[in-house]
Amino acid sequence: MVQAVALPRNEAGIAKALQVLKARFGNRFHTSPSMLEQHAHTTTWIVNQPPDAVVFAHDTNEVAEIVKVCAEYGVPVIPFGTGTSLEGHINAPAGGVCIDMSEMNKVLAVHAGDLDCVVQPGVTREQLNTFLRDQGLFFPIDPGANASIGGMTATRASGTNAVRYGTMKDNVLALEAVMADGTIIRTAQRAKKSSAGYDLTRLLVGSEGTLAVITEITLRLQGIPEAISSARCSFPSVDAACQAVMTTIQYGVPVARIELLDELSVKAANAYAKLDLPVTPLLLLEFHGSEAGVVEQAETFGAIAEDFGGNGFEMTTSTEERNRLWKARHEMYFATHQLRPGAIGFSTDVCVPISRLAECVVAAQAKAEELGLLSPVVGHVGDGNFHTLPLIDTSNPDEVARAEEYVSWLNDLAISMDGTCTGEHGIGQGKRPYLERELGPAVKYMAAIKAALDPDNIMNPGKIVPA
Amino acid sequence: MVQAVALPRNEAGIAKALQVLKARFGNRFHTSPSMLEQHAHTTTWIVNQPPDAVVFAHDTNEVAEIVKVCAEYGVPVIPFGTGTSLEGHINAPAGGVCIDMSEMNKVLAVHAGDLDCVVQPGVTREQLNTFLRDQGLFFPIDPGANASIGGMTATRASGTNAVRYGTMKDNVLALEAVMADGTIIRTAQRAKKSSAGYDLTRLLVGSEGTLAVITEITLRLQGIPEAISSARCSFPSVDAACQAVMTTIQYGVPVARIELLDELSVKAANAYAKLDLPVTPLLLLEFHGSEAGVVEQAETFGAIAEDFGGNGFEMTTSTEERNRLWKARHEMYFATHQLRPGAIGFSTDVCVPISRLAECVVAAQAKAEELGLLSPVVGHVGDGNFHTLPLIDTSNPDEVARAEEYVSWLNDLAISMDGTCTGEHGIGQGKRPYLERELGPAVKYMAAIKAALDPDNIMNPGKIVPA
Repeated sequence: MVQAVALPRNEAGIAKALQVLKARFGNRFHTSPSMLEQHAHTTTWIVNQPPDAVVFAHDTNEVAEIVKVCAEYGVPVIPFGTGTSLEGHINAPAGGVCIDMSEMNKVLAVHAGDLDCVVQPGVTREQLNTFLRDQGLFFPIDPGANASIGGMTATRASGTNAVRYGTMKDNVLALEAVMADGTIIRTAQRAKKSSAGYDLTRLLVGSEGTLAVITEITLRLQGIPEAISSARCSFPSVDAACQAVMTTIQYGVPVARIELLDELSVKAANAYAKLDLPVTPLLLLEFHGSEAGVVEQAETFGAIAEDFGGNGFEMTTSTEERNRLWKARHEMYFATHQLRPGAIGFSTDVCVPISRLAECVVAAQAKAEELGLLSPVVGHVGDGNFHTLPLIDTSNPDEVARAEEYVSWLNDLAISMDGTCTGEHGIGQGKRPYLERELGPAVKYMAAIKAALDPDNIMNPGKIVPA
Repeated sequence: MVQAVALPRNEAGIAKALQVLKARFGNRFHTSPSMLEQHAHTTTWIVNQPPDAVVFAHDTNEVAEIVKVCAEYGVPVIPFGTGTSLEGHINAPAGGVCIDMSEMNKVLAVHAGDLDCVVQPGVTREQLNTFLRDQGLFFPIDPGANASIGGMTATRASGTNAVRYGTMKDNVLALEAVMADGTIIRTAQRAKKSSAGYDLTRLLVGSEGTLAVITEITLRLQGIPEAISSARCSFPSVDAACQAVMTTIQYGVPVARIELLDELSVKAANAYAKLDLPVTPLLLLEFHGSEAGVVEQAETFGAIAEDFGGNGFEMTTSTEERNRLWKARHEMYFATHQLRPGAIGFSTDVCVPISRLAECVVAAQAKAEELGLLSPVVGHVGDGNFHTLPLIDTSNPDEVARAEEYVSWLNDLAISMDGTCTGEHGIGQGKRPYLERELGPAVKYMAAIKAALDPDNIMNPGKIVPA
């Protein structure tokens, strides 16, 4: 495990804020060690830094009230969705108050005619899609976990459908948020486009709770396509699979999903989800459109795949089989952990221009081998984004050092290719040094924005910008 | 004409900065009255407020040098593209130095494999598309004017294709910019998606030169579709035309363009472009896709149009006819002015959720009639965005007052429908009161960001936020 830096604690302020919040929120105010631990970083390699209290908020005004109390006493505020982020976003390095949003989980409005909806931040993506299904609508963004819409907004998440439908930045129309002084703002109206001043919506999307607490999200929706079909295709090498992806994208095929699993990941998926996929690099695809359009897309991809040695190109016609395949893909984070029980994955998240994809994935595999790391690869390769997950015995300092060397090397490689250290997971605590390497002088202006909107640095301190 | 508020001038600072810049830039430094006037607001109803000098910059370092000189002496900096913005963006209410970017007009790189390119801000949209054509690529955003990419970025522009391809916010991947202290930053790498810190790209897109001078833009490109076809269809009323648009969008037809011209606008287009369109509300459409896909889209639209009394649905098969039609559409701003020679148009730019479109357009027409204003309507109606252009004799104070009443009433109506006062033109000087009405408390945080990034308020002061 890797220890994130602890920050100075305002003990007196914390004590006072807790006293006020306890009196106000009664049995929705918690300080039991297990509750606190569950509300800090649990999913990866960064050590848990629990808050001092957890409050379950029920509406925007309550969030504003909590933030005002914390502002008065100079106490950190950390918003919590489902706790599935990967970079220490919900740790409390200076202690403070965690606002659990899971009970703010109402779909407030669906405007079917406008293809949008308004939700509270605790709504999860699966909950939303279940809610929408009867109306023939869906929300496409799908990170691996059943994350909350608030958390997905805060980390600028994406997932397997982003190649066609974009990321959270493209699918949030407007936000309601509580600022560091407790003021409630709306960042935009519900119109589909706007040039009305600075784009506060996009500034808060991806701000990881460091500028405001998001309390309501207006989302763009999509009509469920007339036809959906899935396909899979095996390739002789990861390079060949990536070349096929690059050509598919460059050719303009509007694939809805195009996902890479390397050999190790296929092995993991087979074991975890009781599948029987050929153990060789694999692309999983999904096509959305009219009946004719979907066939056209699949045929075009099939021809491209053949050019790169793809074999076993197979359409998945049954909904059941399709769901099983994609469920397996969404659970890859857990599946790959089974390749080495007890080990902890150091997830990477680089994203490079698509023309550099094959080169970057192949180099990442070679480097892991050179360092003696077991490191499966999965990827949203249509966007040039892929995850490697070196599985580390954290009791072995040498192995941890090699993992850190690998992560650092891979991030630098992606940056040198005009790519980013994070396509969708965010900066949090874990990637702060890389943000500096990636954007250099721009980080100073990020810090200036943070200082302007949160002068006392109470909003999720220690994330993104220097504390 | 309407006078924008003048701001206090720093005469001593301006004199010193001009002296330094004149010595440095020689014959690229201008102070002739005609040159100054050309570099302030010329296209609409806000009075010209010329800068004190114009400098033609040739590269990013020169821009940084100019900004540093202005920062040292506390002098306003106003970036200038082609001068086609509509809300007083390039006026100099406190005087200062205009940086003309028109000679920074190189396409620096085209990465065809990544479907992106890097351009200097002075490149115009027509120049870029001419440059790209041989490679089978195009850049879809097309405001009416042949604007510069820098200006389009700064105002978060869109145009007729936005219904399919989005606005500038969706099509800028990364920016290079000079900040108020002269520091050059890059806001992002060239990867297609990123969660690396605050989205400075989107913060600068639409910031109207008030936070930074944009010096390089990385744009997403599209492959030229296999098939393009245009169509036009007349309707018995504006309401019927809008109902057809709403149904088309709700049905998920991926139209590339769907534009409304009311009767007055059709009349203007006929006269200006020597066309022979039936003088009744008209929709102009364009479909992009495969040969089969385009036919499918057109057939779907045709059936919808029929339901709403559309007649004369006609595909435009010849490229020549198509170009003539769209050229007429792009020149509507000038064409409608011919309906009343000598009058000045008070362009509006509201955008509402698509479900409110018909109601909003019909109400706007009725209000104009009630106030005795000649006010043609054109619109990017697929996005819920439309422009009315009351043509005003500005020597008649009563008529000006009625125009102002109309504009104010229409903006308030759109805001009350959860829409915006500006879909694509921006706030500039002209829409500042409406931004406040639209987003209220959020404007305070916009001002805080402005103050943080530009503490001496030298970057295009008097636009968007209170000076």
